[in-house]
Amino acid sequence: MTSNPVAARTNDETQIRQLMEDWRSALATRDLDKLIQHYSPDVLFFDVIPPYQHRGVEAYRRTWEQMFPHLPPRISVQQRDVEITISGDLAVSHCITRLVNADTNENAAAGWVRATVCYQRQQGSWRVIHEHVSVPFDPMTGKATFTPEP
Amino acid sequence: MTSNPVAARTNDETQIRQLMEDWRSALATRDLDKLIQHYSPDVLFFDVIPPYQHRGVEAYRRTWEQMFPHLPPRISVQQRDVEITISGDLAVSHCITRLVNADTNENAAAGWVRATVCYQRQQGSWRVIHEHVSVPFDPMTGKATFTPEP
Repeated sequence: MTSNPVAARTNDETQIRQLMEDWRSALATRDLDKLIQHYSPDVLFFDVIPPYQHRGVEAYRRTWEQMFPHLPPRISVQQRDVEITISGDLAVSHCITRLVNADTNENAAAGWVRATVCYQRQQGSWRVIHEHVSVPFDPMTGKATFTPEP
Repeated sequence: MTSNPVAARTNDETQIRQLMEDWRSALATRDLDKLIQHYSPDVLFFDVIPPYQHRGVEAYRRTWEQMFPHLPPRISVQQRDVEITISGDLAVSHCITRLVNADTNENAAAGWVRATVCYQRQQGSWRVIHEHVSVPFDPMTGKATFTPEP
């Protein structure tokens, strides 16, 4: 803890970026325990596929557990346009992200998606309290629209 | 301004709820100036339809301006499961929401969507800095999935 607000915010941003890095590396190694370690027990998750919402860290874990069999052997996470805003015990990040096949650099799942993640400091540690991931849909066809380079 | 943190947070939540109420009533009256009055100049908007993202309050305004001709004469906004988290100069809300035809109570647009909105206190006033609205899509068909009662 520091009494310098600029240093405190820099430190908070470093911690949030470490959370994001831990999440990426947990996905690459398919380590479910590590993947959920920074999630709040009552996280609310709006996923890119149904259902409309998942409540709780166990539900979040299950979505990834069910996803793993559909992914290529080696995956990595790409993120673009990452912006992080922090104040007090709350932080928000948003970015464009995708899973890629680490051997071919091709899409490993839905392609580029929009991601918004909200973090709250709980007992001194940052935890994800809300995550919203999506693609837009074409109102003429009702189909999800993917962009190679959004 | 108050030195009591609980009173300050209650006051902040009242202000955020007023923003949401202003937004709903601006939509009902199709008042574009009022609709954008609480938006940050550089708001980043992930809309339910393409493109992937809109940057800036003018782009946000245009999305609604283009939407209005497709809406019935009288509309109202329904919101469910509203949760608001606030700390310091940052706030986050999420809910399930839809536009309805005020005369028939039927969907006026996409039906129920998930909405995440992030607010920052700027020069003493809360402003929307990020908004993310979406529906999930069925991975088998690629189609957006709507639920009457998600």
